[in-house]
Amino acid sequence: MSKIEAKLSELGVNLPDVAAPAANYVPYVVVGDMVYVSGQISMNEDGLILGKVGADLDTQAGADAAKTCAISLLAALKAACGGDIDRLVRVVKLVGFVNSTPDFTDQPKVINGASDFLVEALGDKGRHARSAVSAGALPLGVAVEIEAIFQIA
Amino acid sequence: MSKIEAKLSELGVNLPDVAAPAANYVPYVVVGDMVYVSGQISMNEDGLILGKVGADLDTQAGADAAKTCAISLLAALKAACGGDIDRLVRVVKLVGFVNSTPDFTDQPKVINGASDFLVEALGDKGRHARSAVSAGALPLGVAVEIEAIFQIA
Amino acid sequence: MSKIEAKLSELGVNLPDVAAPAANYVPYVVVGDMVYVSGQISMNEDGLILGKVGADLDTQAGADAAKTCAISLLAALKAACGGDIDRLVRVVKLVGFVNSTPDFTDQPKVINGASDFLVEALGDKGRHARSAVSAGALPLGVAVEIEAIFQIA
Repeated sequence: MSKIEAKLSELGVNLPDVAAPAANYVPYVVVGDMVYVSGQISMNEDGLILGKVGADLDTQAGADAAKTCAISLLAALKAACGGDIDRLVRVVKLVGFVNSTPDFTDQPKVINGASDFLVEALGDKGRHARSAVSAGALPLGVAVEIEAIFQIA
Repeated sequence: MSKIEAKLSELGVNLPDVAAPAANYVPYVVVGDMVYVSGQISMNEDGLILGKVGADLDTQAGADAAKTCAISLLAALKAACGGDIDRLVRVVKLVGFVNSTPDFTDQPKVINGASDFLVEALGDKGRHARSAVSAGALPLGVAVEIEAIFQIA
Repeated sequence: MSKIEAKLSELGVNLPDVAAPAANYVPYVVVGDMVYVSGQISMNEDGLILGKVGADLDTQAGADAAKTCAISLLAALKAACGGDIDRLVRVVKLVGFVNSTPDFTDQPKVINGASDFLVEALGDKGRHARSAVSAGALPLGVAVEIEAIFQIA
């Protein structure tokens, strides 16, 4: 088991298999040492995490949803690494989209659910540049969608 | 005529000239083998494709609008290639913004209008990472805006 | 003083120190010659620039807010360059998010506040690819958030 997966296991996280693409886009594209991962929507073993933060979910529930996006990003990263996620050099950048009410202002606290998890799981390799904004709405009504760029060896 | 343009012609698509920039930004920037293309707004020969998907346009009309963005992205790519679009290695990533009602949930089906067209026109080179979200609103009231990163040789 | 900072000084702009990150993300990540800068929110010496463009702020006030984001982006760039901002090769790309009413349509004019300033300060190195969209809402209620990619030597 890789070091990163051992740490994830300690944190109670097992990376899911990457879903087969449902359309003419793919979960990730590798260019040189950069991995571009498609936007991952909030979901867990019970299914999609739906709703507008600020109405249907509070900020903490939004942060929990954001963490699930980060787990899916790592699952895609592992696939991009041909299974060996220890090839990760660092998380370069996240863009986090929150499905919120128009007057919601705690997007950073929501996306911290992903950022904090990445640093907990990956250490300094997990620190990244980031934007956190609200979308007008998100696919299937999910609470959070996050895309990422990673650097790998 | 290039192979890609011959295929586009079969599909009834002729790439328009790239509009001169209206401001201090440019249609694309090339860094090494990567081309960053500015967000392209939905338009066709009749002008801008306007409105909110979920209210003024249905999902299929949104997908048709997204296809026009993809055509404009390819037009910018051709210009970035100095006219020879066959230098394309692959489409790396799209970010698709849909102008929708706050409860719209079919952003992926809308942006599929671009993704499906790119794969139809470019084959496997057209497969890409992607995020699909709703914006709160879009420039001039257009229905869709899509930005892209391409890799070229 | 660097050439770029001398020009900024002529324009009445002094780059602020980069705020220490408040969370597990960082102001910028450098990968090779590319600098990915986190989304910068509108603020000046008097504090955050808040409100929805189209309701609380007009388009010109939104453009003024966007300029402050660009100043913060350059401050982060300077830090990424180890203090020597003259290492800038060019501004590659901006994504500008406007906090607006749902029917606002002048996102490009708002983000021009950043684009025009970058070209005024940096000349041709300031020209960039760009997307300009409205977010559904923004952190702390700010009017504008802009992220950027720069190329450095």
